[in-house]
Amino acid sequence: MALKIQPLADRVLVQPQEAETKTASGIYIPDSAKEKPQKGKVVAVGKGKEDYKMTVKVGDTVLYGKYSGSELKFDGKDYLIMREDDILAII
Amino acid sequence: MALKIQPLADRVLVQPQEAETKTASGIYIPDSAKEKPQKGKVVAVGKGKEDYKMTVKVGDTVLYGKYSGSELKFDGKDYLIMREDDILAII
Amino acid sequence: MALKIQPLADRVLVQPQEAETKTASGIYIPDSAKEKPQKGKVVAVGKGKEDYKMTVKVGDTVLYGKYSGSELKFDGKDYLIMREDDILAII
Amino acid sequence: MALKIQPLADRVLVQPQEAETKTASGIYIPDSAKEKPQKGKVVAVGKGKEDYKMTVKVGDTVLYGKYSGSELKFDGKDYLIMREDDILAII
Amino acid sequence: MALKIQPLADRVLVQPQEAETKTASGIYIPDSAKEKPQKGKVVAVGKGKEDYKMTVKVGDTVLYGKYSGSELKFDGKDYLIMREDDILAII
Amino acid sequence: MALKIQPLADRVLVQPQEAETKTASGIYIPDSAKEKPQKGKVVAVGKGKEDYKMTVKVGDTVLYGKYSGSELKFDGKDYLIMREDDILAII
Amino acid sequence: MALKIQPLADRVLVQPQEAETKTASGIYIPDSAKEKPQKGKVVAVGKGKEDYKMTVKVGDTVLYGKYSGSELKFDGKDYLIMREDDILAII
Repeated sequence: MALKIQPLADRVLVQPQEAETKTASGIYIPDSAKEKPQKGKVVAVGKGKEDYKMTVKVGDTVLYGKYSGSELKFDGKDYLIMREDDILAII
Repeated sequence: MALKIQPLADRVLVQPQEAETKTASGIYIPDSAKEKPQKGKVVAVGKGKEDYKMTVKVGDTVLYGKYSGSELKFDGKDYLIMREDDILAII
Repeated sequence: MALKIQPLADRVLVQPQEAETKTASGIYIPDSAKEKPQKGKVVAVGKGKEDYKMTVKVGDTVLYGKYSGSELKFDGKDYLIMREDDILAII
Repeated sequence: MALKIQPLADRVLVQPQEAETKTASGIYIPDSAKEKPQKGKVVAVGKGKEDYKMTVKVGDTVLYGKYSGSELKFDGKDYLIMREDDILAII
Repeated sequence: MALKIQPLADRVLVQPQEAETKTASGIYIPDSAKEKPQKGKVVAVGKGKEDYKMTVKVGDTVLYGKYSGSELKFDGKDYLIMREDDILAII
Repeated sequence: MALKIQPLADRVLVQPQEAETKTASGIYIPDSAKEKPQKGKVVAVGKGKEDYKMTVKVGDTVLYGKYSGSELKFDGKDYLIMREDDILAII
Repeated sequence: MALKIQPLADRVLVQPQEAETKTASGIYIPDSAKEKPQKGKVVAVGKGKEDYKMTVKVGDTVLYGKYSGSELKFDGKDYLIMREDDILAII
């Protein structure tokens, strides 16, 4: 599925992964107790800037700080668009 | 329709797109419940700066953060003028 | 009328245009309801800086953000002196 | 009268001009109603910095923002010492 | 044990060392009295930036300021991911 | 008397001059009414920085802003150590 | 006694000198009246940064601002680790 969206400059579009709603012991917890997801999949990458080359690629799974980026709704799905510098690591 | 306005430096003039006043289920919602638009059409682009070349072009549909830019009224229409760096993505 | 004033560096002297005191429907509105003008005429331009060349010229009509610049009274007239970067667009 | 004072770097010593205590209509107004002066005469100029060449010269009459600079008392007279960047224009 | 995680740019993944729960005099103290650990082992290192070469290496024991970095949970273990500049010293 | 102290980088050690405790009319005023001194003698000068060459020299009398620098007590005397950029002028 | 600790980049490890607990008149003052020490001995020095060469050396006695640096406990002794720029002077 190709997303027709081109992040500007050093920005990255990330699709957050669902927080598990089941604890290790198999008990379902209500929604408000879920931790805000910090893991996501890169779905679109900007072209960088004159003095900044992008590192992450489409398809990478990345970790990012809570509260990073701006929320975007697109075809009914939630995305985050953030600067690559907000991405902590590729896993 | 050519707008006789030349944004300075790295600024972009954007015409916000109307927020839909109908929900997916076809129900009209009152004005105060509408989300502030985050999508718009580029209608004029600055010439960039000595060390900054513009990326967006007139006619591009862009996403931008809520609260980005300054509001301008022009011939009875509302526009936003913002720095290109406030534009998140081209769609 | 040549103003004997030389703005320093990247500054621009702007003469604000009067806010219209008549609405589209032809009704006069009291002074406190007037919007602070955001349109003005450039009357003097600084020489720029070593790494900054000026774009606006004397005679240009410009848009600028509300609250931009410092107010100056000169021969009984009100002016604003602002950095060129505070100017949003030439119209 | 040569002032034996050498402003450092990009600083300028300015002697504020007295605010007029008479209005246009010739009525004297009490001291507290006077506007803080924004006009002054340059009496000493720093040597600039490695990457900054001075523009104003001794003898220039300059406009500067209210609250600019530090007040200095010298031989019973009040001066302001400010960075050249605080000077708005030469008149 | 190789951690499949690649910190971005100038970031370092650190595994905090347990705070001693026994005082010098051999008395166990309750958890809330423990000092937050400031010592840790480097388990993954970013590739640096165009103008910044990394100094620490995997396996180094490092000291870092309290409150440095973002907490990450990974395979049930707690890590901190921080910029190398948050690391005070290698011991 | 040579002070065995070497200010680091762009710092300057200044010995504040006593505020006059006698007014022009010859009346002594109590200590709390004295203005904090803004004049001092340079007693030691740092070696500058790679991109900053010092201007002031030992023996110069300088003016500096109130509240500039850190107070140091040395052999029972009070000094101020400040960055050269806090010095306003040489007199 | 060689400390096995390598400060990172432009950091310096300083061992604060005890504040004198005796006043000039020979009277002991209680602990809370002691001034926080501002004098210390350099015990370890970082390797600097690509664009910053270190000035202080191990063994130097230095003055530093109150509240500078992070406190570190090491083998039962208190140290401060600070950037060299927090050091005011070598004495």
